[in-house]
Amino acid sequence: MNKPLSTDLIQKMDAYWRAANYLSVGQIYLFDNPLLRRPLKIEHVKPRLLGHWGTTPGLNFIYVHLNRVIKKHDLDVIYVTGPGHGGPGLVANTYLEGTYSEVYPEISQDEVGMKKLFTQFSFPGGIPSHVAAETPGSINEGGELGYCLSHAYGAAFDNPDLLVTCVVGDGEAETAPLATSWHSNKFLNPVHDGAVLPILHLNGYKIAGPTVLARIPRDELESLFRGYGYTPHFVEGDDPMEMHQLMAATLDTVIASIRDIQRDARANGFKQRPLWPMIILRSPKGWTGPKEVDGKRTEGTYRSHQVPMGDMSHPGHVKILEEWLESYRPRELFDESGRLRPELADLAPRGARRMGANPHANGGLLLADLTLPDFRDYAVTIPKPGSVIAEATRIQGELIRDVVKLNPETFRVFSPDETASNRWGAVFEVTNRCSTAEIVPGDDHVAPDGRVMEVLSEHQCEGWLEGYLLTGRHGFFSCYEAFIHIIDSMFNQHAKWLDVASHVPWRRPIASLNYLLSSHVWRQDHNGFSHQDPGFIDHVMSKKAEVIRVYLPPDANSLLSVTDHCLRSRNYVNVIVAGKQPSPQWLDMDAAIAHCTRGLGIWEWASSDDGGEPDVVMACAGDVPTMETLAAVELLRQHFPTLKIRVVNVVDLMTLQSQSQHPHGISDEEFDALFTRDKPIIFAYHGYPILIHRLTYRRTNHHNLHVHGFKEEGTTTTPFDMVVLNELDRFHLARAVLDRVPGLGPGVATFQKFIEGKLSDHKRHIRQHGEDMPEIRNWKWGVNEG
Amino acid sequence: MNKPLSTDLIQKMDAYWRAANYLSVGQIYLFDNPLLRRPLKIEHVKPRLLGHWGTTPGLNFIYVHLNRVIKKHDLDVIYVTGPGHGGPGLVANTYLEGTYSEVYPEISQDEVGMKKLFTQFSFPGGIPSHVAAETPGSINEGGELGYCLSHAYGAAFDNPDLLVTCVVGDGEAETAPLATSWHSNKFLNPVHDGAVLPILHLNGYKIAGPTVLARIPRDELESLFRGYGYTPHFVEGDDPMEMHQLMAATLDTVIASIRDIQRDARANGFKQRPLWPMIILRSPKGWTGPKEVDGKRTEGTYRSHQVPMGDMSHPGHVKILEEWLESYRPRELFDESGRLRPELADLAPRGARRMGANPHANGGLLLADLTLPDFRDYAVTIPKPGSVIAEATRIQGELIRDVVKLNPETFRVFSPDETASNRWGAVFEVTNRCSTAEIVPGDDHVAPDGRVMEVLSEHQCEGWLEGYLLTGRHGFFSCYEAFIHIIDSMFNQHAKWLDVASHVPWRRPIASLNYLLSSHVWRQDHNGFSHQDPGFIDHVMSKKAEVIRVYLPPDANSLLSVTDHCLRSRNYVNVIVAGKQPSPQWLDMDAAIAHCTRGLGIWEWASSDDGGEPDVVMACAGDVPTMETLAAVELLRQHFPTLKIRVVNVVDLMTLQSQSQHPHGISDEEFDALFTRDKPIIFAYHGYPILIHRLTYRRTNHHNLHVHGFKEEGTTTTPFDMVVLNELDRFHLARAVLDRVPGLGPGVATFQKFIEGKLSDHKRHIRQHGEDMPEIRNWKWGVNEG
Repeated sequence: MNKPLSTDLIQKMDAYWRAANYLSVGQIYLFDNPLLRRPLKIEHVKPRLLGHWGTTPGLNFIYVHLNRVIKKHDLDVIYVTGPGHGGPGLVANTYLEGTYSEVYPEISQDEVGMKKLFTQFSFPGGIPSHVAAETPGSINEGGELGYCLSHAYGAAFDNPDLLVTCVVGDGEAETAPLATSWHSNKFLNPVHDGAVLPILHLNGYKIAGPTVLARIPRDELESLFRGYGYTPHFVEGDDPMEMHQLMAATLDTVIASIRDIQRDARANGFKQRPLWPMIILRSPKGWTGPKEVDGKRTEGTYRSHQVPMGDMSHPGHVKILEEWLESYRPRELFDESGRLRPELADLAPRGARRMGANPHANGGLLLADLTLPDFRDYAVTIPKPGSVIAEATRIQGELIRDVVKLNPETFRVFSPDETASNRWGAVFEVTNRCSTAEIVPGDDHVAPDGRVMEVLSEHQCEGWLEGYLLTGRHGFFSCYEAFIHIIDSMFNQHAKWLDVASHVPWRRPIASLNYLLSSHVWRQDHNGFSHQDPGFIDHVMSKKAEVIRVYLPPDANSLLSVTDHCLRSRNYVNVIVAGKQPSPQWLDMDAAIAHCTRGLGIWEWASSDDGGEPDVVMACAGDVPTMETLAAVELLRQHFPTLKIRVVNVVDLMTLQSQSQHPHGISDEEFDALFTRDKPIIFAYHGYPILIHRLTYRRTNHHNLHVHGFKEEGTTTTPFDMVVLNELDRFHLARAVLDRVPGLGPGVATFQKFIEGKLSDHKRHIRQHGEDMPEIRNWKWGVNEG
Repeated sequence: MNKPLSTDLIQKMDAYWRAANYLSVGQIYLFDNPLLRRPLKIEHVKPRLLGHWGTTPGLNFIYVHLNRVIKKHDLDVIYVTGPGHGGPGLVANTYLEGTYSEVYPEISQDEVGMKKLFTQFSFPGGIPSHVAAETPGSINEGGELGYCLSHAYGAAFDNPDLLVTCVVGDGEAETAPLATSWHSNKFLNPVHDGAVLPILHLNGYKIAGPTVLARIPRDELESLFRGYGYTPHFVEGDDPMEMHQLMAATLDTVIASIRDIQRDARANGFKQRPLWPMIILRSPKGWTGPKEVDGKRTEGTYRSHQVPMGDMSHPGHVKILEEWLESYRPRELFDESGRLRPELADLAPRGARRMGANPHANGGLLLADLTLPDFRDYAVTIPKPGSVIAEATRIQGELIRDVVKLNPETFRVFSPDETASNRWGAVFEVTNRCSTAEIVPGDDHVAPDGRVMEVLSEHQCEGWLEGYLLTGRHGFFSCYEAFIHIIDSMFNQHAKWLDVASHVPWRRPIASLNYLLSSHVWRQDHNGFSHQDPGFIDHVMSKKAEVIRVYLPPDANSLLSVTDHCLRSRNYVNVIVAGKQPSPQWLDMDAAIAHCTRGLGIWEWASSDDGGEPDVVMACAGDVPTMETLAAVELLRQHFPTLKIRVVNVVDLMTLQSQSQHPHGISDEEFDALFTRDKPIIFAYHGYPILIHRLTYRRTNHHNLHVHGFKEEGTTTTPFDMVVLNELDRFHLARAVLDRVPGLGPGVATFQKFIEGKLSDHKRHIRQHGEDMPEIRNWKWGVNEG
């Protein structure tokens, strides 16, 4: 075996590793006596023992070895910790290298600081047990597993000098998102992207059960990773000294291989997808921990997963802990003051080369504003409301095209193969779909340097984008509305990260995560029920108001205005829902800007209340509901010329909430001024009606609010039939007005009959012809033209 | 090459395939003239062309070849269609074999029926464009991709004679759930499970972009599947006659291999995980479709994905369509009446061997009631409310253990490695974790015939369980509450399936999908914010009330009662949220049964309104909120002996809705009787407060409702601090009463001070000691004992 480490260096590296392990065990167990200056007693131990030991020594082992190669080659490396439950390890290492005390000065590099370091871990008012936003050097919360490798690739895109090491636990490797994320190597271009070094860490067990990848034969394991397109390198064993030499030799090999790949591609251009190296590290779970506790084997088993000795009142457990801690020989590691001895501290890289201090892991530090074109330049000319038909997302796609063009290194779009389907085809005028796999003649806009990241996995798109944003860049995720639920849980975790990070003083704001949800519930009539679900908006509402924004622009110009706003924003999740089908356009650009700035407002041109008190408020949010509302208004105005209708359109859904609930919420006075204190409100809403109730239930006039929206009546039918099935169509909306406004006179019965007739004409027509009646398909707002 | 098909047979099989392709194209395009008796005209074509041609000919090809081996070996086969967008293919085949006309007699096997078959497809009032619940033989809705292989394995468990063929599209193969589901073979036991034959269908393109697996070298592809533990067999080409021979030879080989594996395991017992065969079928997208349209290559490209000629008004398109249809030589396939010629019809299997008629794909037909023990036998003895401490899910685990024992072939439990963590350890007294991968000494209850399905993938657990249920068996999914969001979207699709299936007359009800959500938001204080999310309940509420049930049993006996109820139910999704920590027990078994039967009710023993009108209603739902409410009641009763408090506990959340919204909803009269018409209600709720508002916003006394619940204030801290941070603790609840009930007299100021003192004592204590004050940890309900 190749032994690259000198006797001196291996001793020092092992000591450094022992120091990290000592600090990790200390964090899990110790309340006091951090340097074991006195014999360990039960009162030195925390009353509640929380944390995960099992994965930690392996994470520490990798860290010290990465430190060596960073120093040796002056590498720019971040460390993505898949098994984020091993929080103590990352905290320990960033403490040893000095980063931790720089960002948290009270955790000083001495005995007092070490005591605080130990106490704060998983302690009220302290730090979480996982690698989290509070942990320097992290871009991956290690609580919910599955996303580390997608994050790692997202971080590497457009970061040519960055090496992203990503430890994948064998538990996490069983998750669905992780299993597909190995294929990210088909989207990484060595010319202008950095490298990802995946380290699959096999320690054999999850919480209780064995892991799949630790229990397949080595030839299958090797085949699997060759099949994924990697060259696997095995580092297996349990003897520390042998493992140090093996890991060092392997790292030397893979670093050389990565540099070769990059050198070749950058000198000669991209020729073919390289076989990137990856490491399979097999080490015992809870390595160096107690061999046995209460007669049961512990090191190397699932019993090391969390806290090997949970009950410290058990006779002998304090002794085991003391021997365990002493096995690391702390007095060799820390000087009298409690500081890491200088010859060991010298093993860590300096300054921003320390993985805890690498600015890529605090992306806001590197974030630059996008170069944005003037969104007004893309405006659809609207001589009169409703007089022009356009496809909103196609117009938006032209803006996005130029954002791609103007920001060739800091902006990408992500989609599960729906960029063209969602009508962003214009981006292919300036870039391509990205693929470093084989490209064959006839492929449509596919190239190894494409900036449109398409893979049929919402998880991958989301994970890549999160990694890209967290390292200080910008992006947009375009998705079918129904299937964005696939990443509900990833959204949860990202929103929680943003929430926590915004309270971590040294973290800088990052670009917002922007979603375009198109091919939405009302225009998935051809794909049917499985493709019809507007509930993502409801889902995002559960997260902190500070990080959530939801927009339902009614037309192309308002979509442009909202898009520009989102691209400039920071630390939010922006959800934009907009249709891709040809639809009437309502607002010229000035009107759109004014409307979007306010977030909601009265459309005087459609109203008949002449600025006075109306008989009824017809509110709408979303493109299809807006069209149906205006069609209903037109019918009502034709049949009841004296009826005073006020039309209110809502773009920014958050305005409906009270100011105490959301910073965008309008005051109760404003709300009353728009929606009246006592008149019926017929609200046509894009999604599940209950959301509008939930947003407004504390408003004065809530008891007069009648919301029409998606009632989970979906199928394969015509677009207009979809709204009819859910009573969101013009006829049902008009009828709702009749039902709620008294004193409309004798015309009511006639109009009711007229509506019945139209609805049965509609049913008959679609059954016969398979498409909507011409008067529906060709409808245009025209009451103002008459 | 081995050529197993005689000239006669290959001709017939090819003709059968052409018939299926003809019927598929007909469904997508034709409105009339189904047998092309007249020259094709634009008016014979549907006005809206919807559907997915690209994947369909491949699906049809596989179908006819499976028919051959089913007949040859009398196999029991179901066909799981991953690329479910190819709906026309499955409809065509089930029509050809006669199943379709049996379940839909109006779609007769003649020209009239064929016209209806064509017209109904993707047509208002007709059938969806995907394989769906309406499609005979299906257990997998093909709209949202990713779940077919998990469904297939779920179907195969405990079905020793069943062969589940599962076509995986190369688009779907990119999804996260699909990527991990290949590893399901480590959980399939040839002794008592059936076989799964995965067929990876490489046709090269998704909607627009190329697929990953079609663009890696063949040696990588082969390595990948060897790494996944399969023996891959390649069937590649585009010449139909060559492909028929190749596919037939390959199917003969893999069927023989499957039978060998099964014979060996059943004769000699399970020795080691076999290398199951799988097929990689590479065929052109839109195979046999138009080679070129408008000068652009179409067959074999992404342009064949949906409708190759979308605009039929384009000159020449009708001609292309006619030539395309004629290329299948329909007059050779169908007789004068429009019926498939008998010598071709004879190729299909008979009766229940037809894949469209296989009862496993209509699981309700095979469903038998579980043999259930009497849940009362597991009751915790409760001499007085609050006098006993127990772990609710541990008690439930004893019941589950005996359900496993009594139903050794029809009940399994599924969990992402959390069975023991969620305190169902008792099940390991009678069974083990399932693994057919390597098992080593020291593994904890792992065996190849275990009935506890643990894999660290919520997607896999959900998919397996859905497949198991859809084929007529029973199961339970136990999961950490926060991470069940990972399968939000799978839940959506299953709930939609149940909704649709309940309206398909020939589908029989299946067992409900039961979730135990434990390790819930209030007891993930040690793992922290990423593990704290009670929002799954909110998510499920968006689906049809008919299929959704949510239970929050406050203690062990009520959990037993609810569990028994759920195990007997059909066609629902039952969500049970229950804690695993030692907690006070409130109801003896009789009281628990009465309470759960009603779903909510007054707890007289805790109330001080003596059955009269109270001053305040203190309502609670969930175990921790119930405990905090009772502790608050105790404090209030001690300090304000004359205050009339009514305690209402809610087990079945759906009772809060009005009867028009949910079948479990109580009447407004009942609601008013419980919650009063005008008294303040302080409601302590397990999850996000808004849900209680959403359920009750139409109730009389809603404006007096004040809900305390999770406000997204999470971290690593003590259990009691978690409730304090969210103002769900006894002190904040008691203070909320003071704030809302007037006339409590001079004691109010003293009590306010007392509360302030307690809250600051708490903060100080946890910062010093890291655990809750003894008075909190040791609190017991005792007011009735004094």
